[in-house]
Amino acid sequence: MHTTVLRSATREVTLGHDRRFCVIGERINPTGRRLFQEQLRAGDLSAIERDVAAQVAGGADVLDVNMGVPLTDEPDLLGRAIRLVQSCTDLPICIDSSVVEALEAGLAAYEGRALVNSVTAEDERMELILPLVKKYDAAVIALPNDADEIPMESTKRLRLVDKIVEVATSEYGIAIADIVIDPLAMPIGADPTVVCSFLETVEGIRTKHGLNTTCGASNVSFGMPERHQLGAAFLTMAMGAGLTSAIMDARTPAIVEAVRAADVLLGNDEWGMAWIGAHRARQAAAAAAP
Amino acid sequence: MHTTVLRSATREVTLGHDRRFCVIGERINPTGRRLFQEQLRAGDLSAIERDVAAQVAGGADVLDVNMGVPLTDEPDLLGRAIRLVQSCTDLPICIDSSVVEALEAGLAAYEGRALVNSVTAEDERMELILPLVKKYDAAVIALPNDADEIPMESTKRLRLVDKIVEVATSEYGIAIADIVIDPLAMPIGADPTVVCSFLETVEGIRTKHGLNTTCGASNVSFGMPERHQLGAAFLTMAMGAGLTSAIMDARTPAIVEAVRAADVLLGNDEWGMAWIGAHRARQAAAAAAP
Repeated sequence: MHTTVLRSATREVTLGHDRRFCVIGERINPTGRRLFQEQLRAGDLSAIERDVAAQVAGGADVLDVNMGVPLTDEPDLLGRAIRLVQSCTDLPICIDSSVVEALEAGLAAYEGRALVNSVTAEDERMELILPLVKKYDAAVIALPNDADEIPMESTKRLRLVDKIVEVATSEYGIAIADIVIDPLAMPIGADPTVVCSFLETVEGIRTKHGLNTTCGASNVSFGMPERHQLGAAFLTMAMGAGLTSAIMDARTPAIVEAVRAADVLLGNDEWGMAWIGAHRARQAAAAAAP
Repeated sequence: MHTTVLRSATREVTLGHDRRFCVIGERINPTGRRLFQEQLRAGDLSAIERDVAAQVAGGADVLDVNMGVPLTDEPDLLGRAIRLVQSCTDLPICIDSSVVEALEAGLAAYEGRALVNSVTAEDERMELILPLVKKYDAAVIALPNDADEIPMESTKRLRLVDKIVEVATSEYGIAIADIVIDPLAMPIGADPTVVCSFLETVEGIRTKHGLNTTCGASNVSFGMPERHQLGAAFLTMAMGAGLTSAIMDARTPAIVEAVRAADVLLGNDEWGMAWIGAHRARQAAAAAAP
């Protein structure tokens, strides 16, 4: 079983199958946030400081940073955002963009060992992104879709995982441990079979490659009521199948605590020491409250 | 994949791998309930009516009934309790005792098709209990332990499952679909590996036999703080691995809702119709509240 090491200037976080689950905070992302988009277009990055603080308080281990705002200079914006986040917290960063130049600007600005989000199994994307991952000694999230399709069957996704692993390691010299697979979490409201396929894919990746895995967990509950409960149930199930991290809502205690409960159950929080410590801290805080 | 049919006089409940999870309410059980024990010893069964109502309101699909009070006539008490429960609800019953005479009295008193809790892989227990299961056309919960040990390794548990299935079907003529395996859920606080073993066993039973499974879910969080969250995480993980029912806390919304969320995600509540309906009912109730 592989471990993936991420670092900020001063802190190291390790993803692994017998480690505590890695909570990657999803919030620093303008998608669906109209006000934040307007602020970013106007060069106002102050909301980021609040988003960092809320996610650190919520228990994030890593922060995803995405600056995908149409009609902006995304490379410049992402570089500035990463410097700002690093001035607020020592958590490692997941640099998130579909624009190759923005990924490079982010990597150049970043102090530490980043997680790049993301590459696909498309030859063209691998050619553009994997050399950057190698140059900056980063780890990379890889999605099992290619130019033809986003396959729905786990067997097809697993074949694309094989391809990515083969190409990244043998053609680009990337260590297999630095490949984190995102098996594609999709909305259950659109298709009742997507979570079963997802779980099969996660389990297949664990069994065959021993790689770390991640996903955009909030996608699953898109369009459904009571999203927090669906998110908590999804993450705990996925952890049972072998998921080792997620880009997720780190600000909602019900979701983060579900992940920490699953850590106890899977033996990743041995004897529940962290769980019991968090419980005692909450009790102490409640007792100290007026 | 097998389905197990349980019935009361008027209602049928089916356990299965593509069905909604079967919530078996655990509450009608004097273990650890001193006051209830005293009431039962004095012949006062009135608490049962409240326990039935609370579990029906909480969303139980089946009710477990256990009358294991030391120094009582357990067969008589269990027979009376079952008649009382059947006068309060039409949910099917899981008849729970380690005393063979009590199981027989319960089966004789019961109207419908019961679930017998439980038999083990011990030859002596199978000889005593399986003929009763056959005689009363019941289904039976079987635990993979024998006279030698409660094995901790999933491979050993799976061998005992093989033995039970072989003996129950070929020697006692019980339909394989009527065997529900309880892979033994143990406290995570006592050993950090028990849940991983449990999940492997559940998955092995699904893959090899396609049988339904159950467990005493509350055992897992025994001795730990924040038991509801651990219980919710355990059940959703176990459902991901193939668990199809549990004897569990049916009175705590956070736990039952976690199970229903997992049903949505696994496609057992197709398009989330029940989930969305429950959400709307809660909204309507909140709007109607003064």
